[in-house]
Amino acid sequence: MSAKYAVILGNLGNTCDRFLSGGYKSDLSKEQLWQQVGEMPEVSGIELVGTWDIDADNWKDVKNKLEKYGLQCVSIIPDLFSTRIWGRGSYSAPDRSVRERAVSYTKELVDLAREVGCDLLNIWPGQDGYDYPLAANYREEREWLLDGLKTSAEYAHEKGVRLALEYKVKEPRTHSYLARAADTLLVAQATGLPNVGLTIDSGHAFVAYENVGEMVTLLSMFGDRLFHMHFNDNYGFWDDDMIVGSVRTVEHFEMLYWLRATGYSGWYSMDQYPYREDAQGAIRASILYLQKLEAILDHVGMDAVEALLAKRDAVATAEFVRNHLLASPG
Amino acid sequence: MSAKYAVILGNLGNTCDRFLSGGYKSDLSKEQLWQQVGEMPEVSGIELVGTWDIDADNWKDVKNKLEKYGLQCVSIIPDLFSTRIWGRGSYSAPDRSVRERAVSYTKELVDLAREVGCDLLNIWPGQDGYDYPLAANYREEREWLLDGLKTSAEYAHEKGVRLALEYKVKEPRTHSYLARAADTLLVAQATGLPNVGLTIDSGHAFVAYENVGEMVTLLSMFGDRLFHMHFNDNYGFWDDDMIVGSVRTVEHFEMLYWLRATGYSGWYSMDQYPYREDAQGAIRASILYLQKLEAILDHVGMDAVEALLAKRDAVATAEFVRNHLLASPG
Amino acid sequence: MSAKYAVILGNLGNTCDRFLSGGYKSDLSKEQLWQQVGEMPEVSGIELVGTWDIDADNWKDVKNKLEKYGLQCVSIIPDLFSTRIWGRGSYSAPDRSVRERAVSYTKELVDLAREVGCDLLNIWPGQDGYDYPLAANYREEREWLLDGLKTSAEYAHEKGVRLALEYKVKEPRTHSYLARAADTLLVAQATGLPNVGLTIDSGHAFVAYENVGEMVTLLSMFGDRLFHMHFNDNYGFWDDDMIVGSVRTVEHFEMLYWLRATGYSGWYSMDQYPYREDAQGAIRASILYLQKLEAILDHVGMDAVEALLAKRDAVATAEFVRNHLLASPG
Amino acid sequence: MSAKYAVILGNLGNTCDRFLSGGYKSDLSKEQLWQQVGEMPEVSGIELVGTWDIDADNWKDVKNKLEKYGLQCVSIIPDLFSTRIWGRGSYSAPDRSVRERAVSYTKELVDLAREVGCDLLNIWPGQDGYDYPLAANYREEREWLLDGLKTSAEYAHEKGVRLALEYKVKEPRTHSYLARAADTLLVAQATGLPNVGLTIDSGHAFVAYENVGEMVTLLSMFGDRLFHMHFNDNYGFWDDDMIVGSVRTVEHFEMLYWLRATGYSGWYSMDQYPYREDAQGAIRASILYLQKLEAILDHVGMDAVEALLAKRDAVATAEFVRNHLLASPG
Repeated sequence: MSAKYAVILGNLGNTCDRFLSGGYKSDLSKEQLWQQVGEMPEVSGIELVGTWDIDADNWKDVKNKLEKYGLQCVSIIPDLFSTRIWGRGSYSAPDRSVRERAVSYTKELVDLAREVGCDLLNIWPGQDGYDYPLAANYREEREWLLDGLKTSAEYAHEKGVRLALEYKVKEPRTHSYLARAADTLLVAQATGLPNVGLTIDSGHAFVAYENVGEMVTLLSMFGDRLFHMHFNDNYGFWDDDMIVGSVRTVEHFEMLYWLRATGYSGWYSMDQYPYREDAQGAIRASILYLQKLEAILDHVGMDAVEALLAKRDAVATAEFVRNHLLASPG
Repeated sequence: MSAKYAVILGNLGNTCDRFLSGGYKSDLSKEQLWQQVGEMPEVSGIELVGTWDIDADNWKDVKNKLEKYGLQCVSIIPDLFSTRIWGRGSYSAPDRSVRERAVSYTKELVDLAREVGCDLLNIWPGQDGYDYPLAANYREEREWLLDGLKTSAEYAHEKGVRLALEYKVKEPRTHSYLARAADTLLVAQATGLPNVGLTIDSGHAFVAYENVGEMVTLLSMFGDRLFHMHFNDNYGFWDDDMIVGSVRTVEHFEMLYWLRATGYSGWYSMDQYPYREDAQGAIRASILYLQKLEAILDHVGMDAVEALLAKRDAVATAEFVRNHLLASPG
Repeated sequence: MSAKYAVILGNLGNTCDRFLSGGYKSDLSKEQLWQQVGEMPEVSGIELVGTWDIDADNWKDVKNKLEKYGLQCVSIIPDLFSTRIWGRGSYSAPDRSVRERAVSYTKELVDLAREVGCDLLNIWPGQDGYDYPLAANYREEREWLLDGLKTSAEYAHEKGVRLALEYKVKEPRTHSYLARAADTLLVAQATGLPNVGLTIDSGHAFVAYENVGEMVTLLSMFGDRLFHMHFNDNYGFWDDDMIVGSVRTVEHFEMLYWLRATGYSGWYSMDQYPYREDAQGAIRASILYLQKLEAILDHVGMDAVEALLAKRDAVATAEFVRNHLLASPG
Repeated sequence: MSAKYAVILGNLGNTCDRFLSGGYKSDLSKEQLWQQVGEMPEVSGIELVGTWDIDADNWKDVKNKLEKYGLQCVSIIPDLFSTRIWGRGSYSAPDRSVRERAVSYTKELVDLAREVGCDLLNIWPGQDGYDYPLAANYREEREWLLDGLKTSAEYAHEKGVRLALEYKVKEPRTHSYLARAADTLLVAQATGLPNVGLTIDSGHAFVAYENVGEMVTLLSMFGDRLFHMHFNDNYGFWDDDMIVGSVRTVEHFEMLYWLRATGYSGWYSMDQYPYREDAQGAIRASILYLQKLEAILDHVGMDAVEALLAKRDAVATAEFVRNHLLASPG
């Protein structure tokens, strides 16, 4: 039993940072990006970023590409972060017209999603937050954020589209409004709509010092609101967006257990920034890593892990790690 | 207009850490601790820790002391952390009898609180959490935690006592169940009772990378659940429990603004660990610092701060800091 | 007695991050940037980035501008980070020809520096580091780094130019080779040359959990190798490059004390990324903040601070903060 | 080829923290602790803490125990941290008589070490540091620290004993003077003596955001000053002192490679705080984990790893991790 794997189209392309804004690699054409996704046998789903990858003008072409490469569009990510208009926020921007534009733009993507057979928007309002203490009105901005999300969600609900709110504790702002699992759940609940849930990006959770397995459980317990998963690894201090398993092993195995134990039926989507690496290779490495852990989980069985957890004994866990997760050479 | 200030009795005493378990200072008698609190003219409230400071045997004596020193008992903190029985958790301990003991003990303190004219328990279940990945059943333990709190809260509700849940992202466990403002709010809401709210310990919030002003606002917006405040400062990585204002200035001023703006009417209680410092001096220094910031806020006025926040301009904020928070020598 | 203040030309311009690579603001012309620096009455020095601001073709124009605006070029910062050639390192790049280019490029800038009357290169080899565990040969790369710096420094020494190595624990790599004050000092010493020292960027030090005052002292004690200072503020986890004093107060006052106490005679240069702020206003705010702290230090006197430090008493320090750093309203 | 493994006697016993100062477990007798060490077949070395485990009165008994259990005393750790006299520092304490006592005490332990056939003191001056900004004279205290270490080292040198300075960025102070590998190396060098080197505690390095493999290399390159190794794991923010491999896998494998590649010939000593775990089980689990990684390293061979590192390719590293470190079920 293996999960369904997806990738984000843009992750295959050139990636930049604030110092090397032109990017670390050569630019690839959109067609090359699609082709690279199509080449990965483990991948059956794709996420597209609004404006970058899909808009009102090219959606038919996107539809053709999905068919050509045998891919399902598992989510569309509205671009609420990479255009200057959103530089001071989207749903919670100080400027009313920007806030309105954020909502109308979200609605447009709801429609586009339907056109390409996708029922999920992954909403990451990364510019909605603040940078300095004593330089924002948290109350007003949180209200704006909720209003914008609610209005968007109502429209999406009518259209049969779900919104998965992706949280991240910081970056590009020093503080985000959708920062952690629980505060984002509060916002999702406050919309009063069943089609609003969350995306857990494992790397974002690590930076928030969350245990992903616990957060999966939390969202399951409070209304079954985990809609989508992004995977990547980091050192715990910043969203390094590394290949899965580069730093942590046990936590990854544990999160696979809890995703299964809670009946998560969504996609496992990779979200990385392979600045200096071969992108296709780096993203595929994450999938192969997770699939290897899945195979181990299949082999030992859910019951054995449940029994281990019931022991609540780190020494038993260490023995399990040595016996089941680590290789036995020779 | 000044807030009401309180201290935690035990903070006046000897404090230890894991290396110097005998403590950095000489032990003072209980009477000396009370006397030191009584000597601080700015202090009118006191928090007492169960077992350490108050129990079924001494509550009459406590009542006398409160009267003698002109103090109000503003909260009782059940000792759910410093006795070996709680070493693996209290409300969520693996052992059912321990969980039951946690609830019955909380009920006992509800009764004691009433006896000494106190209407608030500050609940810090610091041992309820986990240390290692793949060594706990988060679902089961979260359910136990909620059950225990709910049962305790029902009893307290009947007696007219409120429970303020104090969160802390880690320590003594590497991960706590009541970790941050929003997840603790979810638990408070899930009890379905109006007498369950939160304590924000400013230092705990800093370690969770929360902006305290924003969290005050969040708790105000979602059901007005901020019941109590603890103050101390740190470097952002660990609960150093330092004198308020030792590291941060602007954030402290900002939190005072939001406490007033949201109509917080509870106590400002100091919670420090003055390992190597004169405890009375260190705790009083925090109060004097906050009172000085309060005086600045009185002077500039709430409206001026509100207007500043509406600018959402860090340059304007910096000018405000220079002009109103920093001294002007000469 | 006030320090000499400088700014980095590029900080006045548009700034981007990895999400909004086009930048948060409109681009200004080079002439506008120079003009904005010229307008700041507190500023008498300027830092220029190689390629961006100065090269073999425009140095005469740069010289004219320096004269026109009455500015001294206090450092040139070789661009070893924003061009794709350096994407996998400069002095320690895997590719020998890149390493050679890093050295020859540094020599070119030594010559350019002389042409514009500047005697200091601020060397920030931000791309020299690594991202993943088990994916670099630290020994070989550290040797390459040292060789490149040594060869560059020998040339600079002949020309009467000093090299100030600027350390930063991470970003753009997850780990840098010049990461902290002490490891960078080891590299400076290992060149065996007196013209190699360090730049402390206060924000970089905060992210490394260094106390800047202590690091100033350390560099003073081990060969007087502090050559240059960059100032900015952050929350301690990332190089947020904020306005000085936005988060911390006491540490800034303390670092000014130690800069004076150790006889630092270099420049106080601002290094910020005012993504969404008016750049000129944000940079000037940092200078005004530091000048205000300098005025306080003048007022209380170095002896008084020295006497305070001799007490080693946080309660006395808190009193000092209240009495001398905080405003007294009314 | 397996490394030599050691444990710290006290780690087998009861462990406390600042909240549960009586400890999480029952106290064991000294004899029981020794016996538990003796029972671990993988262990041939032991570290003893001064005062706790060895002093002028019991060293003959210690010698007998070493013989009885077939153990070598691989280091003695002077107790410069758990007695109230050191509460404000040892070698750098404000009080001259305390500083003198630190030195004379170290000399006593040098003599005791000789008596029990041990040639290494592991010096962890954990109380030498500071807590608050603007409350210490870094220059004076660093000079005191160096003086004390130098005087102690001269004596040790005469007696043929080496001093391994163990660094830790914080705790019990918010800032330590021996904080990171490089600054501690500077102090070791400054003694001017060949018998002063370093202990890397892997967990301390993680908290300082150091890559242990790189630090092993650094100490090898700058005078071959790595004398001793302590192992434990954590989440990167605090010295959680967990079982090795509970969080990180790749970094542990990498550090074993570099220890071998640089010719490290010292001990692999476990240093943990198994607060709530069976201590013997938890410590042994770390050893078994490292031995399993050593077996993998034996199997793949040093050359294969060196070739991997030469690729400097995270995708190749990820493939190596999947193929050689992770288990292949079925």
